[in-house]
Amino acid sequence: MDQPVLAPPWRISEWLNTTKALDLEAQRGHVVVACAFQMLCPGCVSHAIPQLKAVHDLFAPLGARVVGLHTVFEHHEAMTTTALRAFLHEYRVRCPVGADAPAEDGSPIPQTMAAYGMQGTPTFLLIDRSGRLHRQIFGHVPDLQLGAEIMQLLCAAVPNGPGVTP
Amino acid sequence: MDQPVLAPPWRISEWLNTTKALDLEAQRGHVVVACAFQMLCPGCVSHAIPQLKAVHDLFAPLGARVVGLHTVFEHHEAMTTTALRAFLHEYRVRCPVGADAPAEDGSPIPQTMAAYGMQGTPTFLLIDRSGRLHRQIFGHVPDLQLGAEIMQLLCAAVPNGPGVTP
Amino acid sequence: MDQPVLAPPWRISEWLNTTKALDLEAQRGHVVVACAFQMLCPGCVSHAIPQLKAVHDLFAPLGARVVGLHTVFEHHEAMTTTALRAFLHEYRVRCPVGADAPAEDGSPIPQTMAAYGMQGTPTFLLIDRSGRLHRQIFGHVPDLQLGAEIMQLLCAAVPNGPGVTP
Amino acid sequence: MDQPVLAPPWRISEWLNTTKALDLEAQRGHVVVACAFQMLCPGCVSHAIPQLKAVHDLFAPLGARVVGLHTVFEHHEAMTTTALRAFLHEYRVRCPVGADAPAEDGSPIPQTMAAYGMQGTPTFLLIDRSGRLHRQIFGHVPDLQLGAEIMQLLCAAVPNGPGVTP
Repeated sequence: MDQPVLAPPWRISEWLNTTKALDLEAQRGHVVVACAFQMLCPGCVSHAIPQLKAVHDLFAPLGARVVGLHTVFEHHEAMTTTALRAFLHEYRVRCPVGADAPAEDGSPIPQTMAAYGMQGTPTFLLIDRSGRLHRQIFGHVPDLQLGAEIMQLLCAAVPNGPGVTP
Repeated sequence: MDQPVLAPPWRISEWLNTTKALDLEAQRGHVVVACAFQMLCPGCVSHAIPQLKAVHDLFAPLGARVVGLHTVFEHHEAMTTTALRAFLHEYRVRCPVGADAPAEDGSPIPQTMAAYGMQGTPTFLLIDRSGRLHRQIFGHVPDLQLGAEIMQLLCAAVPNGPGVTP
Repeated sequence: MDQPVLAPPWRISEWLNTTKALDLEAQRGHVVVACAFQMLCPGCVSHAIPQLKAVHDLFAPLGARVVGLHTVFEHHEAMTTTALRAFLHEYRVRCPVGADAPAEDGSPIPQTMAAYGMQGTPTFLLIDRSGRLHRQIFGHVPDLQLGAEIMQLLCAAVPNGPGVTP
Repeated sequence: MDQPVLAPPWRISEWLNTTKALDLEAQRGHVVVACAFQMLCPGCVSHAIPQLKAVHDLFAPLGARVVGLHTVFEHHEAMTTTALRAFLHEYRVRCPVGADAPAEDGSPIPQTMAAYGMQGTPTFLLIDRSGRLHRQIFGHVPDLQLGAEIMQLLCAAVPNGPGVTP
């Protein structure tokens, strides 16, 4: 991605595993790693959820903000927020998870998923300290590469300039 | 299990992946393999569901009746039959699956799970051609052993006697 | 294999993990499972060797004779019997392993491997109580199927007739 | 490691997969990742060798120098350089691999392994652009962490000073 653009804001109907909403704009100065998933997506459950947990364990102590985004675009009747809460409990996901807000125009694609033009789940979003979308990865990403890409963002100097709150 | 007893009947509220109910008594003469699981049980999803699918692929052509039993004893609000239907679709489970009937006395344990005294999920039930419960295995069972135990039942001669329909 | 033929005798230059040679003819009355491997074959090391160990643990107590055959057809200078001994120690292989006897005509294919017409390694041989080669499987065989096929042979009645020692 | 010390020089009896010796001193200005292994060490074969290959694929194009070190401290008669050559071929290891020079005092521990005080195999060495030993990891290291640690060294500015050749 040659010219990273500002990451679109998240539209979340409810946050779980946290007492306060995580506004993306409020994270400026921090590297943000988000994993968009669906609780009934086999590739998410077998690969992306364990990665999300490991990323949270390794990089949150280094200052990264690590979150899940539940971007339900199919089987809406099955993947409710109530079901998500049980899923997070059973799979021991401790990091904050936002339920992507349903579309207002009747589309099956929820609002955040649409804003990022995601192709499906799982999708990892890597956002730099300036709030720019550095990388958006659909499908499987090897741990070695994921660890390297996150660290690269963490190593980048905190940018100075208007609107940035380190 | 030195003296196998007759396997208790199943109490099922709804069958999926089949157009007709599978009465256990009607399977006499056939080896029956049942996998009791919950769709939000991590050990079921990672191990038992793939095993159920492989057992169905390998042993159904040899005459075994292979089924899933959705024995929900927690998070009932999340693991509805509607959610189960989406789960079976996403995980490509093709064999018949029965939703264990909820208890009538307010217990969280559904009726079939209670009748078998299951300790949790996953649990495999191996039932011989006479309808006797040969083995009940809670937790992980290695594929090598599972394949051997099922074949042992398949190799046993069809018993003769009243009520048995080979 | 519609008409199983008598399994050819093994030609072994040295037996490891046992104090006496295992003559195939002397195993009549017993099911024999042999895993032909090479210590520097990646597929053997990652799949077949763990299977050989699990097969030995599960089926030897049931009377099966479980052995490894080191069928070296390449890198002969690296896969010596000395190296094999270290390999078996490090990988905790406890069952008897026979080093396939080198060809006498200068071929890279050792004698037992040639007699069975093996296509490569790993290859499993399943031999019934009468000494007939029931199955010869080249490449990966799933545990579920392997367990079932071995049990099928174990369930078969001990044959009667001259030369059979149950 | 609070105060990284200069990484001791390597003592190599023979280099494979390269036409010229890789002197550690000559790598100044580059991040160096070395994986010390033994070809008959199960943990090396199942985890460290695949990691070495993935690290080479991902980080060599970014300028890191990625090498294997064959640090044989047991079964010397089995793990010869001849055997190592066959091993590297079969496991498709393409990066340079140095055979650690045997001790001159009769110790089973080879010279480089002794100089670094390695506890066993596998051991990863992460050396920064100044030639300092940033990290020495014995045993299993998760891919996520390994990728992060290597990238952290790659992100560090090239140091200036006498003797450094960027």
